[in-house]
Amino acid sequence: MEKKRRVLSGMQASGRLHLGNLLGALTKWKELQDGYECFYFIADWHALSTCYEDTHEIKGNAFEIAVDWLSVGIDPEKSTIFIQSLVPEHAVLHLLLSMITPVSWLERNPTYKEKQEEIKNRDLTTYGFLGYPVLQTADIVLYKADCVPVGIDQLPHLELTREIVRRFNYIYKKDVFVEPEAILSETPKLPGTDGRKMSKSYNNAIYLSDPPDEIEKKVRSMLTDPQRGRRTDPGNPEICPVFALHNIYPPSSSQVESQRISQESIDSPAIDISEISDQCRTAKIGCVDCKMILVRNIIKKMQPLYERRCELKANPERIYEILTQGSKKARKIAIATLKEASEAMKIG
Amino acid sequence: MEKKRRVLSGMQASGRLHLGNLLGALTKWKELQDGYECFYFIADWHALSTCYEDTHEIKGNAFEIAVDWLSVGIDPEKSTIFIQSLVPEHAVLHLLLSMITPVSWLERNPTYKEKQEEIKNRDLTTYGFLGYPVLQTADIVLYKADCVPVGIDQLPHLELTREIVRRFNYIYKKDVFVEPEAILSETPKLPGTDGRKMSKSYNNAIYLSDPPDEIEKKVRSMLTDPQRGRRTDPGNPEICPVFALHNIYPPSSSQVESQRISQESIDSPAIDISEISDQCRTAKIGCVDCKMILVRNIIKKMQPLYERRCELKANPERIYEILTQGSKKARKIAIATLKEASEAMKIG
Repeated sequence: MEKKRRVLSGMQASGRLHLGNLLGALTKWKELQDGYECFYFIADWHALSTCYEDTHEIKGNAFEIAVDWLSVGIDPEKSTIFIQSLVPEHAVLHLLLSMITPVSWLERNPTYKEKQEEIKNRDLTTYGFLGYPVLQTADIVLYKADCVPVGIDQLPHLELTREIVRRFNYIYKKDVFVEPEAILSETPKLPGTDGRKMSKSYNNAIYLSDPPDEIEKKVRSMLTDPQRGRRTDPGNPEICPVFALHNIYPPSSSQVESQRISQESIDSPAIDISEISDQCRTAKIGCVDCKMILVRNIIKKMQPLYERRCELKANPERIYEILTQGSKKARKIAIATLKEASEAMKIG
Repeated sequence: MEKKRRVLSGMQASGRLHLGNLLGALTKWKELQDGYECFYFIADWHALSTCYEDTHEIKGNAFEIAVDWLSVGIDPEKSTIFIQSLVPEHAVLHLLLSMITPVSWLERNPTYKEKQEEIKNRDLTTYGFLGYPVLQTADIVLYKADCVPVGIDQLPHLELTREIVRRFNYIYKKDVFVEPEAILSETPKLPGTDGRKMSKSYNNAIYLSDPPDEIEKKVRSMLTDPQRGRRTDPGNPEICPVFALHNIYPPSSSQVESQRISQESIDSPAIDISEISDQCRTAKIGCVDCKMILVRNIIKKMQPLYERRCELKANPERIYEILTQGSKKARKIAIATLKEASEAMKIG
């Protein structure tokens, strides 16, 4: 039997996960579990790079993220799920790699300047923030991951990892580390409640941990076509964030069918995407009704995950157990790789 | 009984130790052993910051430095002697502190630019070299050292450590770390064989591990007053590196006395410093004879240490045992402090 290729990916413990994370990374992660040997980790140390001044949520976030993952089907029987800080070898390899990484490689990393401009209310000109890609490299290469599922915006980071790997293997004349390849995950343009990209930084996200009534509240508060001031004005779905979400959470065809037959009520209009679009353009449907259709469709998709989430949270010991066991398994590999690296560097 | 204050200091495993190290740091270290609880460590990870491209001597250097220390009287019964890389908590705390250290603090560190200019044949524009003072801070504060013996050139580093300590304690609202004070060790101006400051980087050093004949060879090859081209020319001791060393290794008064009385031979001239100076200025003594006086005086001081060195090296197991035990002892303290720091940061 051929050995499965290894995948590694992680998420910062700087917030709970939202629909954007689910549709982007997590769906891909779940898919990969069957064809690859997967390692997924919660990056609590990375969270410090942006949240060092306010750390009180990091531990809670790490726990919630683990629940999020399990609720969407990341399976500890298939994948190794672990916490970065439970594998201190990440910090040691970070230090070793720091010695061979030119500062200029880090300064030219586009995220370094971009994030500083994006997050203006926090001081991100720290040494650790500059070195973020070095820690990320340590995270990946400790497991000799063959592939890393990334969004297109993270490709420069992965290229930097590949450069550091080449430099290490060249200087120490041994192919200790593997150059990881990207598995590009499609990131659908998912608008948040304010129309900007859904992001925890923008406070516009619908979270996996949001109960149905919270989803309803958030969707009802969404911005729509700003030109549609009155109910009788025709709207333009193309610039409406609610309509963009309809595209992602459309009525299922069976739903449309059954509603068409039963014609139960005005709250369950038997319409599909093109009908919603038409009715908006002709002011046949108002924004409130339109949003309520979306609320039902999102809840229909998310309710089973939310229920599974509640079950999981009822047994926190089991979550900690999964994280502890996963970290132990990860650490074994990390220790072996670090030993190999130290020996290649002749300091081990 | 009052608790002894704690001292911490270390040396990079980037070379063996020379007379400059002995007269500067080591003599001070030895002194401190009786009044303080001393921790002395061999910084093998730090050595990577300048030697990352050629690491094959680091492990050997670490061993030789331990032998050097023991030979001059650093006493494992009094002091904890350990190896940085055997206490991985240094790397973890380095990572945590990196998150709160502004890049600008590191860029304005005078050593960063100076060393880059001094060591032109190696590329020191690495992330790890920039972060050298962050690792140094981790080294010190992991042990909550009250005092650090330093040369005057290292004061800016210590000030940076104090700044990082204040910042950590302020952000995390707990006085986890101690601001270390400097114990200034006098660093006598010790010229190397080429007249520049004695330094392993300049390849002009006399090492503690040099046997007597090597000392003789090195001293004989020393530069003297460049104006004194011929034996009959008068010399100027003030600009002669050999004379500078005479000041540091003068004939002991008993030696002068005994030589004066016996008048054994021209090879053992019964002269003291002022006589050497006079005889040089009047061309009564030639450079070769003058150097041979110095050779004898250095060897007289160094031979007992050299012999002790040979004894120690004959039993390498004992050296490794001291380092292993010391590292275990250090690690206990490091683990406790790191735990305290992680808890203050709410990630532990």
